[in-house]
Amino acid sequence: MTQPIRVAIAGYGNLGRGVEAALMQNPDMRLVAVFSRRDPASVSLLDTRVPVHAMADVEQFQNDVDVMILCGGSKTDLPEQGPYLAQFFNTVNSFDTHAKVNEHHAALDAPARKAGYVAMLSGGWDPGMFSLNRLFGETLLPQGETYTFWGKGLSQGHSDAVRRVPGVKRGVQYTLPSETAMQRVRNGEQPTLSTREKHTRECFIVLDEGADADSVRETIVTMPDYFADFDTTVNIVDEATFEKDHRSMPHGGFVIRSGLTGTQPDQHKQTIEYSLALGSNPEFTASVLVAYARAVHRLAQAGESGARTVFDIAPGLLSPKDPAQLRKELL
Amino acid sequence: MTQPIRVAIAGYGNLGRGVEAALMQNPDMRLVAVFSRRDPASVSLLDTRVPVHAMADVEQFQNDVDVMILCGGSKTDLPEQGPYLAQFFNTVNSFDTHAKVNEHHAALDAPARKAGYVAMLSGGWDPGMFSLNRLFGETLLPQGETYTFWGKGLSQGHSDAVRRVPGVKRGVQYTLPSETAMQRVRNGEQPTLSTREKHTRECFIVLDEGADADSVRETIVTMPDYFADFDTTVNIVDEATFEKDHRSMPHGGFVIRSGLTGTQPDQHKQTIEYSLALGSNPEFTASVLVAYARAVHRLAQAGESGARTVFDIAPGLLSPKDPAQLRKELL
Repeated sequence: MTQPIRVAIAGYGNLGRGVEAALMQNPDMRLVAVFSRRDPASVSLLDTRVPVHAMADVEQFQNDVDVMILCGGSKTDLPEQGPYLAQFFNTVNSFDTHAKVNEHHAALDAPARKAGYVAMLSGGWDPGMFSLNRLFGETLLPQGETYTFWGKGLSQGHSDAVRRVPGVKRGVQYTLPSETAMQRVRNGEQPTLSTREKHTRECFIVLDEGADADSVRETIVTMPDYFADFDTTVNIVDEATFEKDHRSMPHGGFVIRSGLTGTQPDQHKQTIEYSLALGSNPEFTASVLVAYARAVHRLAQAGESGARTVFDIAPGLLSPKDPAQLRKELL
Repeated sequence: MTQPIRVAIAGYGNLGRGVEAALMQNPDMRLVAVFSRRDPASVSLLDTRVPVHAMADVEQFQNDVDVMILCGGSKTDLPEQGPYLAQFFNTVNSFDTHAKVNEHHAALDAPARKAGYVAMLSGGWDPGMFSLNRLFGETLLPQGETYTFWGKGLSQGHSDAVRRVPGVKRGVQYTLPSETAMQRVRNGEQPTLSTREKHTRECFIVLDEGADADSVRETIVTMPDYFADFDTTVNIVDEATFEKDHRSMPHGGFVIRSGLTGTQPDQHKQTIEYSLALGSNPEFTASVLVAYARAVHRLAQAGESGARTVFDIAPGLLSPKDPAQLRKELL
């Protein structure tokens, strides 16, 4: 076996820890360092043998890292760290501000091209795997409609809103795809559906001692903007149940393309459906980033440079297997 | 808009007709000719303005065709026509003999490279879109199992077997994924399942006049190799119902990857599921071939040559949209 691909992580939160765990499942890759803006001594990794360095020293490690996986947030971390690190490393990130994707692409492309590195943006599942399936859907079935449903998934913003209600001690909110809406899409009806028609909301809360269940419930389901316009259910659970069942970060969803092929009057319904049921959202996102890190390393080795997305990368480059083996085993 | 991509079809059966219909949904592509081994006058296209030529004359059209889509069968047509046509055209085919894929790849690669053309093999849904999803599944979730279920789909071989039973006037057989097996996979049990445990069989037949329903049914469900080891149901229908409901060629299926991320003891179940519900199997296969024809044309324009599969082709090349538009609309 050739030398493992040397990977580093920039930013060690839930996503960074997920990347560390995912690398352990890929023997052709090795975590060589973590970079953090926190005091390195305060960052505790799953594998304590891996060194943690200050982000300020990152430029010294240019020759020791094949691919840097950026695990910061899209709002402030990635717009700043992305273009900076693209000068020194091949990089992969999970930038997910859909409206600013082309802006971020341009900000990475220039420094990466200049320095001869590949900068992959918006890896993960949405953007990422869902984007790929939206592309395949509309390209394979040009006469049709694409539907993206999210859930079952933990929503941070809505969970915060639930916890601000007086009488709520602990609370989480899950967004679920509406079964009725999904069935209409699968039937090939091609309905017009708003985001709220496509989703329902489910809350699990622990009450403060002495709080009135009915009034808490009423406050939640009538909350404007957050819940009033949705089909919302509120489940009251005890603290032990909450601790046991509502601490992980599940997510997922569906991308469905419903189309027609053939010619009038002899047309046929065709449905493509892609779905994810994720026990841990950050761990799955991390797994996608790690596979794309392998592809980015290969693209750079082949002499490519500049910004790339999931649309630009041939799927075979993600796999540790060689092309003949892939054809034999998977085609 | 630039000049449409000039596409030709080699072999005009169900798949060829599907390609012709799919091209009508893609305004950046144009069908310029059909080549057939039959008497051209006997081949009737959807669009009668498109010329039909004898296959024997195909070499004369080298400068008139950007991509040739081969619509013959995998058993004898493609092994012969593929390497021959790869000398003169960029080609796309749906070669589906899994066991001989690397052999066919080699047979196409040499002439295509020598002549400077791209030869894409094994486009369609299995091999094709299902292959891609098997690759993504095992690459994104290395610790896990992949399951391919087929159906609901019309099976030609089993339909033939049903029709050979004395007393059967007309008959079709559909293969269905077993709901029980799929549920176990979705639960993350990662069961070991044989092909027969994953599928059930459903027959619809019209009886000959005076035939005994019970004995026909018994003959079918106990037929060795074909039905005896499967959960098989036989439905007897009248001729009008058969004509109305059982003349199309539906197919489809599921690729499910069930895996675990994280580290012991804190692991999480992750499930990726891709499914197709196809009203017409040949029309969907044709739609995939047409999208890959666009990609093949672009690869050839970029100076590439040789054999390619779905694993080697960046998804963005399939779409008529440019990269910035794809990022803005679909990422």
